[in-house]
Amino acid sequence: MSPSVSAPVDTVTVGPIEGSEKGYRAIAGSNGTLRVPFRRISLTNGDHHDVYDTSGPYTQYASEDQLHDLQAGLPKTRDEWAKPEPVATENGGAGARTQLAWARAGVITDEIRFVAAREGFDPEFVRAEVAAGRAVIPANHKHPELEPAIIGKAFAVKINANIGNSAVTSSIGEEVEKMVWATRWGGDTIMDLSTGKDIHETREWIMRNSPVPVGTVPIYQALEKVKGDPTKLTWEIYRDTVIEQCEQGVDYMTVHAGVLLRYVPLAANRVTGIVSRGGSIMAAWCLAHHEESFLYTHFGELCEILREYDVTFSLGDGLRPGSIADANDEAQFAELRTLGELTKIAKSYGVQVMIEGPGHVPMHKIVENVRLEEELCEEAPFYTLGPLATDIAPAYDHITSAIGAAIIAQAGTAMLCYVTPKEHLGLPNRDDVKTGVITYKIAAHSADLAKGHPGAQSRDDELSKARFEFRWVDQFNLSLDPDTAREFHDETLPAEPAKTAHFCSMCGPKFCSMRISADVRAYAQEHNLVTQEDIAAKLAADMAEKSKEFTDAGGRVYIPLETAQR
Amino acid sequence: MSPSVSAPVDTVTVGPIEGSEKGYRAIAGSNGTLRVPFRRISLTNGDHHDVYDTSGPYTQYASEDQLHDLQAGLPKTRDEWAKPEPVATENGGAGARTQLAWARAGVITDEIRFVAAREGFDPEFVRAEVAAGRAVIPANHKHPELEPAIIGKAFAVKINANIGNSAVTSSIGEEVEKMVWATRWGGDTIMDLSTGKDIHETREWIMRNSPVPVGTVPIYQALEKVKGDPTKLTWEIYRDTVIEQCEQGVDYMTVHAGVLLRYVPLAANRVTGIVSRGGSIMAAWCLAHHEESFLYTHFGELCEILREYDVTFSLGDGLRPGSIADANDEAQFAELRTLGELTKIAKSYGVQVMIEGPGHVPMHKIVENVRLEEELCEEAPFYTLGPLATDIAPAYDHITSAIGAAIIAQAGTAMLCYVTPKEHLGLPNRDDVKTGVITYKIAAHSADLAKGHPGAQSRDDELSKARFEFRWVDQFNLSLDPDTAREFHDETLPAEPAKTAHFCSMCGPKFCSMRISADVRAYAQEHNLVTQEDIAAKLAADMAEKSKEFTDAGGRVYIPLETAQR
Repeated sequence: MSPSVSAPVDTVTVGPIEGSEKGYRAIAGSNGTLRVPFRRISLTNGDHHDVYDTSGPYTQYASEDQLHDLQAGLPKTRDEWAKPEPVATENGGAGARTQLAWARAGVITDEIRFVAAREGFDPEFVRAEVAAGRAVIPANHKHPELEPAIIGKAFAVKINANIGNSAVTSSIGEEVEKMVWATRWGGDTIMDLSTGKDIHETREWIMRNSPVPVGTVPIYQALEKVKGDPTKLTWEIYRDTVIEQCEQGVDYMTVHAGVLLRYVPLAANRVTGIVSRGGSIMAAWCLAHHEESFLYTHFGELCEILREYDVTFSLGDGLRPGSIADANDEAQFAELRTLGELTKIAKSYGVQVMIEGPGHVPMHKIVENVRLEEELCEEAPFYTLGPLATDIAPAYDHITSAIGAAIIAQAGTAMLCYVTPKEHLGLPNRDDVKTGVITYKIAAHSADLAKGHPGAQSRDDELSKARFEFRWVDQFNLSLDPDTAREFHDETLPAEPAKTAHFCSMCGPKFCSMRISADVRAYAQEHNLVTQEDIAAKLAADMAEKSKEFTDAGGRVYIPLETAQR
Repeated sequence: MSPSVSAPVDTVTVGPIEGSEKGYRAIAGSNGTLRVPFRRISLTNGDHHDVYDTSGPYTQYASEDQLHDLQAGLPKTRDEWAKPEPVATENGGAGARTQLAWARAGVITDEIRFVAAREGFDPEFVRAEVAAGRAVIPANHKHPELEPAIIGKAFAVKINANIGNSAVTSSIGEEVEKMVWATRWGGDTIMDLSTGKDIHETREWIMRNSPVPVGTVPIYQALEKVKGDPTKLTWEIYRDTVIEQCEQGVDYMTVHAGVLLRYVPLAANRVTGIVSRGGSIMAAWCLAHHEESFLYTHFGELCEILREYDVTFSLGDGLRPGSIADANDEAQFAELRTLGELTKIAKSYGVQVMIEGPGHVPMHKIVENVRLEEELCEEAPFYTLGPLATDIAPAYDHITSAIGAAIIAQAGTAMLCYVTPKEHLGLPNRDDVKTGVITYKIAAHSADLAKGHPGAQSRDDELSKARFEFRWVDQFNLSLDPDTAREFHDETLPAEPAKTAHFCSMCGPKFCSMRISADVRAYAQEHNLVTQEDIAAKLAADMAEKSKEFTDAGGRVYIPLETAQR
């Protein structure tokens, strides 16, 4: 299948990220070679630093001339990977062809090999995490363009970027560009949340050109099919929509099957009621029909469909809090308990599961969310939206939520759904998407550091060394956003020589006469002093000499690169 | 004293914050009336919400015509407040006229009355916190233009905005405007870190026009006096600079007296050495002279000077980590132990003390900083710079540091020194100052919520109610930055009617047919159901009726204001 509308998308952003080169490392798959992507940042001292890369071939193309035919889509690489035989599951049928079922049966798939190499883990460790349901690899058999990624608390924290049009804004072309743009800056997955026209067509263009897993919320499209009236929804309409999306290659789907009829009244006295769109649709349906949610009553059938494609459940938190006042209330946790039940059912069918989490939560109530999710949902990967740590800063909710996101990720959340500056105010444009992605890379990486993720700190260390040694260009290029770092620097010191200058605009050339720390270090090396005790002893024994040496050298003082900070 | 340069500053930003009116509440002082400032946000439903206000009369002036004569400065209101008699201190002299000494002697000063009314605490509680050294009220007798503020962990978390020129940038006028601008958006104190020309004059203009406490780092000006050569610094030059600044009315001073000669080698093997400017100056001096720091050896004399004016010590962390790699190392904590000793000495002289903290610290090492500071420094107010939770995001360090700042404030930090997007890259301009202040208000308020600060959540609740009821203008005006919230909204739905529309650009008019939560709530009220159990029981007993009612009402569904979020 390929998009049927004649080329409404003619181009997207291409070209390497400043100072970097896209590369692929070849590893052995069971059916031939797997090409594992990475990005190499070259340093001016001759070294380089490799980082995880989500951007697909778009950053490999030197110019638009090299861009593949967007209508044909990316190469269908995964079609050539090994396809193990189906294996039996508890709720059986003809057997399952899912990462979970295979992992439980001891099979190391090419997808596992790929993500293991991509993150630097042993494939057997990855398999065990997937088998335990503590990690998922969302990878629909019908998304062969995918470069698989793993989501689980033992791995680097991932981030998702939401895109999608609405009834009042944007075109297919804009949405495809948002996908390319979001993954350029580090989006590990994207969700297409379109609710406007051309939903199927927009998704087809995105799927065929997306190197990352794509998620959707099928109820949105189902609602379009009944002209926006939730009471007209039926299981059959929903089921057919899910199958349609599975066929297109969607890798994971948000399903709000935990919004039960009896939970709806629990939201009555909340400050902000039900704020999940899917949650409110299902609540409306339940109330109108006074029946239990068809997502809940037909959950087994849904599992059978998703299993067929190896689509991963993202069990939605339809009753998540929409304000600080509503955090961690009975409505929220009642639904979470039901998500725990559904997790076990899905896994019995061999279907992979993630659990969605809040929302708006004050800092002191964040960790409880993770503990409870892990307890109730057998440590299925937690996938949270922020949470926002306060409600009072619309236009800055990427920041209010990055605070909550970093804390919840440190506590064990596996993937963070980004929030852009436009949250609560409008739909994000291209700049907002970038700001949201970079902000969430910060939250995710901060959590990786706090969790001691192997290798996470090396990038901080490289950048800090570059900073200390006044290697400005390296500092820019090692950063999450080289373009903006350079632009900010150049606002006050635009000349090219300043890039190698041993000073900056914060103190100016006179103050920045040089670095005492470097002097002390040089002294230590010169005298072959290894430990700090050596240095202290030598200094004590050798006071006058050092004093004279230092004064002779001009009494140079390291003036820091911190901005005018005390 | 007033600025001697003939009016280099002719104007600054004036006018109310959108949707608000500046007000003053009269309370009884011991010598007449005290006028306590606040800001009243009017709501479209006829209510209002009052918030703490730091902006001085600038937001009261309707236009530039009403601006006071900047050369004469703000009214010297505090000159009319009560001046209690000096009281004895452990290290005595003629007795002390400081908030600490008075509080210990049981005196409730007008400054205490003022801050107690401003924050909604009992004056006696405030006095006890000041007496214990757990809170400070930086208020130089020679800064009569000041509206005092309290800094301590029992109170709302405060934020500081750094301003100041450097050898390569900016003018006096720009710096005065930055002060007005920073306090307009919520800066509780400002630090003038000028290192360029006209340091004395710039400070004079700032002091005379600042309604908030002003901090400085006197060693910067002292270094200017010796033409930037740290080895030429002497105690006498430093002392005279401190006296000069005390005479001008500076309210608190950063003193890096904990950088001892023997600690300097501890920084030798760090990734980023010494990054505090003051710390590196003193380290250079110590190494060059091979003597103990004159700030340490003359600390008692310094206490006598600061006591005379009631200037508060901000004991600087000259060895704070400048990178994730250096966090919580021996250099940092060795200095902190010395700051603990100096805290006790300063307090024995009756001088108020804050302790400065890092810097760059990964999330899992943040809380240890607070615990150790409290243990070593008798819970003196902790005043931290961020900390940045990762090094890899120059151009976004307001965000990397807001994550750390929120966490460290939740743990007990009393004041947060802001970081702007230009950190590590250049000096902040006016926009950067605003971004830094708003970002830090977010961190501080998030911590207030997490600490259960009385009244903190009411603003979140008001804003969330406004959001839920589609009172767009109230949502904007209750936010930290009404201008930007409105601007972002208007990008996609610019027409004025949209401000009251019961929908927004995220879903559009069709989807946003209305609110199931409101429906459920209305149903509950109609049937006089109070508890959630009542509602659930009634619903169960009354299924068919409700179902019909809901369907008759058009099956309206609340579509949330969250941006396209699942």
